Amino acid sequence: MKTLIVDAKGKLSVEEIEKPEYGPCQALVKMLSCGVCNGTDTKLIHGEFKNFDTYPAILGHEGVGRVVEVGEKVESLKIGDMVLLPFLEAKVKDYTPGWGAYSEFAIVGDAQAYIANGMGEGTPSWNESYLAQSVIKETDKVDAVGAAMIVTFREVLSAIRRFGFKSNESVLIIGAGPVGLCFTKFAKLLGMKTVITADVLEEKVQEALKMGADYAFNSSVCDLIKEVKELFPEGIDYVVDAVGINALINQAMELVKYNGKICCYGISAKPYAEIDWRKAPYNWTLQFVQWPSKKEEGEAHSQIMSWINQGVLNPLDFISDVFNFENITDAFSLIEERRQTTKKIVIQYE
Amino acid sequence: MKTLIVDAKGKLSVEEIEKPEYGPCQALVKMLSCGVCNGTDTKLIHGEFKNFDTYPAILGHEGVGRVVEVGEKVESLKIGDMVLLPFLEAKVKDYTPGWGAYSEFAIVGDAQAYIANGMGEGTPSWNESYLAQSVIKETDKVDAVGAAMIVTFREVLSAIRRFGFKSNESVLIIGAGPVGLCFTKFAKLLGMKTVITADVLEEKVQEALKMGADYAFNSSVCDLIKEVKELFPEGIDYVVDAVGINALINQAMELVKYNGKICCYGISAKPYAEIDWRKAPYNWTLQFVQWPSKKEEGEAHSQIMSWINQGVLNPLDFISDVFNFENITDAFSLIEERRQTTKKIVIQYE
Amino acid sequence: MKTLIVDAKGKLSVEEIEKPEYGPCQALVKMLSCGVCNGTDTKLIHGEFKNFDTYPAILGHEGVGRVVEVGEKVESLKIGDMVLLPFLEAKVKDYTPGWGAYSEFAIVGDAQAYIANGMGEGTPSWNESYLAQSVIKETDKVDAVGAAMIVTFREVLSAIRRFGFKSNESVLIIGAGPVGLCFTKFAKLLGMKTVITADVLEEKVQEALKMGADYAFNSSVCDLIKEVKELFPEGIDYVVDAVGINALINQAMELVKYNGKICCYGISAKPYAEIDWRKAPYNWTLQFVQWPSKKEEGEAHSQIMSWINQGVLNPLDFISDVFNFENITDAFSLIEERRQTTKKIVIQYE
Amino acid sequence: MKTLIVDAKGKLSVEEIEKPEYGPCQALVKMLSCGVCNGTDTKLIHGEFKNFDTYPAILGHEGVGRVVEVGEKVESLKIGDMVLLPFLEAKVKDYTPGWGAYSEFAIVGDAQAYIANGMGEGTPSWNESYLAQSVIKETDKVDAVGAAMIVTFREVLSAIRRFGFKSNESVLIIGAGPVGLCFTKFAKLLGMKTVITADVLEEKVQEALKMGADYAFNSSVCDLIKEVKELFPEGIDYVVDAVGINALINQAMELVKYNGKICCYGISAKPYAEIDWRKAPYNWTLQFVQWPSKKEEGEAHSQIMSWINQGVLNPLDFISDVFNFENITDAFSLIEERRQTTKKIVIQYE
Repeated sequence: MKTLIVDAKGKLSVEEIEKPEYGPCQALVKMLSCGVCNGTDTKLIHGEFKNFDTYPAILGHEGVGRVVEVGEKVESLKIGDMVLLPFLEAKVKDYTPGWGAYSEFAIVGDAQAYIANGMGEGTPSWNESYLAQSVIKETDKVDAVGAAMIVTFREVLSAIRRFGFKSNESVLIIGAGPVGLCFTKFAKLLGMKTVITADVLEEKVQEALKMGADYAFNSSVCDLIKEVKELFPEGIDYVVDAVGINALINQAMELVKYNGKICCYGISAKPYAEIDWRKAPYNWTLQFVQWPSKKEEGEAHSQIMSWINQGVLNPLDFISDVFNFENITDAFSLIEERRQTTKKIVIQYE
Repeated sequence: MKTLIVDAKGKLSVEEIEKPEYGPCQALVKMLSCGVCNGTDTKLIHGEFKNFDTYPAILGHEGVGRVVEVGEKVESLKIGDMVLLPFLEAKVKDYTPGWGAYSEFAIVGDAQAYIANGMGEGTPSWNESYLAQSVIKETDKVDAVGAAMIVTFREVLSAIRRFGFKSNESVLIIGAGPVGLCFTKFAKLLGMKTVITADVLEEKVQEALKMGADYAFNSSVCDLIKEVKELFPEGIDYVVDAVGINALINQAMELVKYNGKICCYGISAKPYAEIDWRKAPYNWTLQFVQWPSKKEEGEAHSQIMSWINQGVLNPLDFISDVFNFENITDAFSLIEERRQTTKKIVIQYE
Repeated sequence: MKTLIVDAKGKLSVEEIEKPEYGPCQALVKMLSCGVCNGTDTKLIHGEFKNFDTYPAILGHEGVGRVVEVGEKVESLKIGDMVLLPFLEAKVKDYTPGWGAYSEFAIVGDAQAYIANGMGEGTPSWNESYLAQSVIKETDKVDAVGAAMIVTFREVLSAIRRFGFKSNESVLIIGAGPVGLCFTKFAKLLGMKTVITADVLEEKVQEALKMGADYAFNSSVCDLIKEVKELFPEGIDYVVDAVGINALINQAMELVKYNGKICCYGISAKPYAEIDWRKAPYNWTLQFVQWPSKKEEGEAHSQIMSWINQGVLNPLDFISDVFNFENITDAFSLIEERRQTTKKIVIQYE
Repeated sequence: MKTLIVDAKGKLSVEEIEKPEYGPCQALVKMLSCGVCNGTDTKLIHGEFKNFDTYPAILGHEGVGRVVEVGEKVESLKIGDMVLLPFLEAKVKDYTPGWGAYSEFAIVGDAQAYIANGMGEGTPSWNESYLAQSVIKETDKVDAVGAAMIVTFREVLSAIRRFGFKSNESVLIIGAGPVGLCFTKFAKLLGMKTVITADVLEEKVQEALKMGADYAFNSSVCDLIKEVKELFPEGIDYVVDAVGINALINQAMELVKYNGKICCYGISAKPYAEIDWRKAPYNWTLQFVQWPSKKEEGEAHSQIMSWINQGVLNPLDFISDVFNFENITDAFSLIEERRQTTKKIVIQYE
C-alpha cells in the first residue's frame, strides 16, 4: 500500500509499504480521509516536535477509515463501519509511525474485546487510542471528509474540559485558524458569557464572528490589549493561545483576572520563554494542554456528535480544501503558503 | 390596569387594579407576554401549591415586559428594553401576588443599582429575582412570545445543573410535555450519551424524537421498564419525573443504576408517597428540585441565549397556542382540557 | 480450619471446613482479627439483608489477616504482611460466603499482579475487593485489633465522600454507635463548621462530645427537632441516619435546609416507608449509601491512615469488647443485648 | 499609640501615632500578638513587593487583638473577644498601612453588621477582610501567641484549596520553613498519599519528618531530582515552591507528571524568569497563588480550628521565637540572619 513518509530533513514522499497486520481484537480499515494538522504534522516535518526524533516517519493522526477485515475476537466493530482514528502501530520497514494515518490502510482496536480478553488497561497489548477509535453511526449526520474534522473537535473539546471553562465566564481566544474557531464555537455552545476572538487576518476575524464570538478583533489593526481591557477592566477568566506563540503568554498576563488562566494549546516551535509576571495579578495560572489524552478524546465524542446531529456544528465550516491522497504533497505545500483563506485541509483516499 | 385574579375556590376573573409603584432602583414594564405554567399556575388555582394559602391571588410568573419608566437610580435598564420575569412585589387591594405577571404592568429591579446603593443581598430591599430579570438584547434571536419560553428554559437548565447531569451519562425522562421536551433537548445539547423519553401520548413521543431523544417510548402501548432494562441492563444514571406522579418514584427504582438518581422536577399534587426501595440498588438518590433559585436561573441565561442565538434551540417549537390577554381565561380552560396537542400556552398583551 | 456459619434460621455455629485455595495472584492469610458489624452481620443473621438468601452462609467482612503463603505471580504482598479485608471467595461445602472472614484462614488478591497479568477490571478473574485489600505498613500506628476498625472507618469515609460533605457546612448525625461516632469524628476532621450528634443513650451522647461534636443531644430527654431548629432556623445541610430507622427520614425533612440532603447510611430492616415531604423545603435530596464500593474504600485508605498515624484518630476509642474466636458466638449474644456501653466488638484469632 | 514604620529605604522605627478611629460596624482592638511574615514583610521592607510603593508604611498583617470598644451597630463582636486579622484601614499621618497590625491598636469589622446595614459586598464601605476577622472562641485551644499562627495556617490552607490538592495524590514541597511545614502537615492531614519535603538545612528536614512527611530530603547533600524520580518514575502530581526561587520552576518541570502542577506560593524577589519546558510533560500547569483571598481565608477557619481543637495541629510547633513589641526591630534583625533554627517569629504586646 502507499503511505506518506517524511525523512529527517523534512522531505515528504509517497512510498510503497506492506499492509499492516492486525491482531485478534483489531480490525483493518481502508482509509477514507485524514485531516492535515497544522500543528503536529508541521512540527514533525520540521523536526520541531518535542521528544520525537525517529525518522523516517509515517505521518497522519486525524484519520477516518472503513472496516474491511476484523480479527477473530472483535465484538464491537463490523465490516463496513466508519471508524475514527486508525493508526499504524508498528514500525514498517524503517519507518516509525508518527501515527501513520496517511496510508491506504491502517488499524483500529476494539476496546471492549481487549478488556473482555484480559488485554485491557495495564497490560502490554493495550493502547489507550482504542478508547478514541469511535464508530460513526449510519444515522450520524457527517460524511467521511467531515468526519476527519471530528478528531480536531474532540481534541479541542477535551482540552477545554482540562482548562476548565465554565459557563458564564469570559474567554479571549488568540488565533482564528481551525483550532481557534473550534475554541470560539465551543466556548459559546458551552454557555460562556463572553467570547472574544482575535486574529491578524481580517478574513479569520469575520469567521470568528460567524462562529458566535461576541467580539472579534483584528489585532494587526487595533491594540488588542487596550480593547480587551476596555471591555473587561478587571480582566478575563481565560486567555487561550490557539497558535503557539510564546510572546502571547506575557501579553496575556495583563489581561487575565485575579485567579484567571492562560491556556496554551497551540504548540510553539520554541519550548522555552522569558516570562514576566509583573503585570499579572497575584494569582494566575499558566496551563499547557498540548496532548489531549485519547481517553478524554473518546469521552468528548458524545458531546461533539450531539452538536453535529442537532445541526449546530458543521464540520464543513472548518474545512477549506480537500486533496486526493495522490496529491498529498500538494496539501503540505499549501500549508506552508499560510494563505489567509486556508482552514483545515483534508486528504481523501479516492 | 387589568390583572388576573384567582380566588380561594379557583375561580378566575380579570379585575381592575392600580398600576404598581416602583422604587428608585426599579423599572415599570408594560407586559408583552407571559407563559402559562401547567404546574405552578394549575396548582395555585386548585389550592394545591405547597405552603401557599393567601387568596385571592394574582397569578403569572413567566412574563416578559418592556421598560416604560425607570427609577432615578437605575443604571442597567433603559426605556424600551425587553426584560424577563417582571413581578408584582406588593399586595394590591386584597390580592396577594402569586407573582402577578398576568397584569398589564409589572416591576423589575436593577440588581447592579441595588448593590451600588447598598441595598444588595442581605438587606431588606433585596429580592433575589433581580438576578434573573435579564434584558433580552436587540441582537438576540427571539421575539416577545418566544421570550416567555426562556423562563421555562432557564428553570429546567438550572434544575439540570442541580441534578448534576454529566456528559456521557444516560437519562430517562418521563413525560414529554413542554418541561419533558426541554429536559430531552438540553440533555442532548449537554452531550449526554443516551437520552430516552417516555410519554403516554404518541404525538408527544414523536416530539421527543424530534428534540433529539435517542429513544422515545409510548408507555401506554409498551412495557417501559422492560424496554429500558433491555437497553441498560445495569441501569440508567438519571430518571426524571417531568410530570409529578409519585408512582414514578417506585418505578424508577428498578431502573436507576448503582449510585444513580431519581430526579423529581414535576410537582405532584400529593406531597407524600409510600416508597419501596427493594428493587433499588444499594446506593441511590432521590432528589427534588421543584423551586429553582432565581440566582441560578439568572446564571442559566448565557447558556440558553447561546443555544437560541446559534439556532439550535427554538422557543417556538415548545409553544402550541398564543392567547390575547383579554381571552386569558380561555387559555386556562384549554389547559384543563389536557389535549394531546397542547404544549406551552403563551399570553400576549394588546 | 474453623469458620462461623449461620443457617437460614439465624442459628450460629462454628464448623470445620477446608482451608481456602488461592490463585497465582492471591495470597493465603491467617486471620488476626475481624470486626463484628452491627448492621450487615445482624441483618444476614436475621435474614433481612436485601437480596441475600443463600444460606447456610459464612459471615465476616471486616477482617485483618497476616500473609502466610503467596501465589507465584504475586508482586505486592509478601509473607508476614498484615492485610485488610481478606475474604473467602468461593463456596465451601454448602456454605456461601457472606464474605467469610470469620474463618481461621482467608484470601487476599494482589491487584497490581492481576492487572499486570491481564486479569484486571473487566475480566472474569477480577474482584473489586482487591483494590481495598490494603497492606498495613510496619510504621503504621495500629495493631491487629485496631486495624479491624479501619474497615469501618474507610466505609464511613467513602460514604461521606459520596454524600458530598463540604467543609464549612453543617451536619446532624442521628445515632452515636460506632458508625455515628465515625461520622461525628470525620465530619469535624474534614472541617465541617457545625456537627450535631444525637442518640437516645446518655453515654453515647457523651462519647459524641468527646469525638468533637459541637453539640450532642439526648433525644430521649429533649425535643431534638426543636433544639436543632433553634440552632439552625434555616435548616441543616446534611442529616445522617446512622442507625437505619425510616421514621428519621420524615423527621429529617423538617430540619434540612433548601437544597439540603438526608443521608441514609444505616440499613433499615424495612426497605419501604411512607414519606411525607410537606415539611421539607422545595428542593431536597434523599440519598442512600448503603454499600460503599470497594474501590472507594481503597481510595479512603490514605486519609484514614494519615489520621491514625498523626494520632488524631484512635481505633481503640471505637472498640468496647474483644472476643477470642473460640467465643465468637458470645460476641453475637452481646450484640443482641444492645447494651449502652457496647461499641465495636472485635474478634481475635488466638 | 506606638506603631512600626518602614521607610522607602527599608529603615524600621517605632513611631507614635493616633489610635485609629472605628466606624459603627467596627470594633477597636488592643493588639495581643502579630506574626512576622518572612515573605511579605521582608519584601515590603526591601521595596520588592509587587505593586507597592507608598512609603513610609506601617507593617503587620498576621495580628490578633482583643476587642476593647465596639461601634454602635456591631452585632457579632463584644468587648473581650479575641479576633484575628485586625488592620489599620486608613492612612495615619503620612503612613500608608501595609496592613498596619504592628500597632498597639487596630480595627476589625463585623461583616454581619455591615451586611445588615446595607454596607455589604459591592458597597464602598465593604472590605473583604471582614470575612476573615474571625473570633477565637473561649473553648478554642489556642492562646494569643499561637493564634497569630492561624493567619498563616489559613493562608496556606486556602492556597492548597486553590491549587486543588486531592487525597491519594502525591506532592513534593520545596522548602521547610514555617510555610513549607504547613504545606507538609496539611497535605498529610488532607489524606494525600505521598508527601515529600525538601530543604537545604538538615534541621528543617527533620522538622518535616515530624510534621508527617513520608520522605524528606536534604537537597544540599543529595540529588533531589534523582531521588524523587526514583520514587515516582512517572512524576509527581504537585510540586510546591514554598520559598520563592524561580529556578525551582524549571527543576519542577522534570518532576511533575502528565497533567501535573507546579505551585508557586513563595514569592520570588524577581517576578520574571526564563522557563524551559523541554523536560516537562506535554500537559502541565504552573499556578501562582500568592495572595489568598480574605474570603477564602475566612472559609478555611473551621478546618484549621477543628485540627487545632482536636489536638493534631499545634501552632506552637511552628513558632521558634517570641519578641515583645518594644523589641520588634530585633525580630526583624533575626529574620535577616536566616538562622537554621528560626521558624515563625511572633510579636507580643505588653
